[in-house]
Amino acid sequence: MSVDERREQLIAVALELFSRRPPEEVSIDDIAAAAGASRPLVYHYFPGKQALYEESLRRAGQELSARFEEPADGPLSERLYRVMGRYLDFVQSHGPGFAALLRGGSVAASPGTSAVIDEVRRAAADQILSHLAIPAPSPGLRLTVRAWIANAEITSLEWLGERSVPLEELQLHLVQEFVAALTLTAAREPALAVELAGFFAAERPDGPTGRLVRDLAGLFAVPGITEAVTALAVGADDVAAQEPGSDG
Amino acid sequence: MSVDERREQLIAVALELFSRRPPEEVSIDDIAAAAGASRPLVYHYFPGKQALYEESLRRAGQELSARFEEPADGPLSERLYRVMGRYLDFVQSHGPGFAALLRGGSVAASPGTSAVIDEVRRAAADQILSHLAIPAPSPGLRLTVRAWIANAEITSLEWLGERSVPLEELQLHLVQEFVAALTLTAAREPALAVELAGFFAAERPDGPTGRLVRDLAGLFAVPGITEAVTALAVGADDVAAQEPGSDG
Repeated sequence: MSVDERREQLIAVALELFSRRPPEEVSIDDIAAAAGASRPLVYHYFPGKQALYEESLRRAGQELSARFEEPADGPLSERLYRVMGRYLDFVQSHGPGFAALLRGGSVAASPGTSAVIDEVRRAAADQILSHLAIPAPSPGLRLTVRAWIANAEITSLEWLGERSVPLEELQLHLVQEFVAALTLTAAREPALAVELAGFFAAERPDGPTGRLVRDLAGLFAVPGITEAVTALAVGADDVAAQEPGSDG
Repeated sequence: MSVDERREQLIAVALELFSRRPPEEVSIDDIAAAAGASRPLVYHYFPGKQALYEESLRRAGQELSARFEEPADGPLSERLYRVMGRYLDFVQSHGPGFAALLRGGSVAASPGTSAVIDEVRRAAADQILSHLAIPAPSPGLRLTVRAWIANAEITSLEWLGERSVPLEELQLHLVQEFVAALTLTAAREPALAVELAGFFAAERPDGPTGRLVRDLAGLFAVPGITEAVTALAVGADDVAAQEPGSDG
């Protein structure tokens, strides 16, 4: 192997080990053994475990960021659904390492590992904003995107621990939560509401948004919900005007 | 001062300093000076800065957890609104320390600090679930609550950096996002949908939920949204049955 090949091999082997176990459970000896190399040879390429951990994490971050890339074709929720499929596939295949990294408090956490996490989050947010294709996203919309990314992280972390629902269900729910968060933000921002109309118009009934709309519409069949929501929609002043003296 | 009083004083002084600056910018000398004590005296009580940091963090965690406590009176969204007011007040008064703690990758991050963060998150989730008063919350509902707590954390962290909206607006939005997340979860879980009806029935038009319902109802006045949502609500099969040969 050339110097470059050996270095790449060590990183690949380390990434594989760090994906399967938390960093404190992986030693330089483990990496050397898995790479068929000697301990001194590993130290020839990397000053220590932390440097190798950070380098393999950088590679994992690049791989994950690449999975966010998606052509700007078709309804937005279907694009996001495909992206989430690739994201969850990554989470699943790098499970224990992903969990150790994001759970925090790891002995291997450092400004270097934080920078990698931040960079992946930024890449995810940029991709989503690019698909929204809104020239100047408002602070509120940017915050909605970042908060939803945090939601996706925590939800997939929890899922890794419990696997209480099938992966496809998680994939669908996360996309629908984004659609809901976008709708909520649009309800507060008239300029975004106009964009939302175009977004909904491009959606298909059998896509994540169509299924969400029907699930929500189904709620109105539950006894009491239509009446309660209608009373709230009519509003405080109107209620007072229509039913003077009533407070029930 | 008695031994206990001195110890408490050092913790209080440390908490004050760690609230205002990230841990790496606070030294034992700073703490000694602010407490009117000598450096050896501080070391007499605590083995080092990390121990004092973790102890002051534990106190801050207890104080924050206490702020989540709220009587089970009145509409749910109004209870949550009061809790969020106290939470955001804490975030504001402990800003830089709160940010350094949650941003991760801090040099002072440790299993001890992670345990404090986890404990505060668990206290927050338990409080919310107790207000929902659902005997056996489903995994989906628990996940919704935890994901919303993550949303509140990231949103308040971002707010600390930019303060792009008034604090009261953030407080209202966070509560409304919880109501939306709960509604979405109920749309997938029939047993929760029944509970949701009772929850909506107790809400008031001028509370966070009432205002949310009217904001969302306002979206239907935006040209195109009613048509697009109706087409999605009718569903794929029905659309195909009604308009054979049409795919527009």
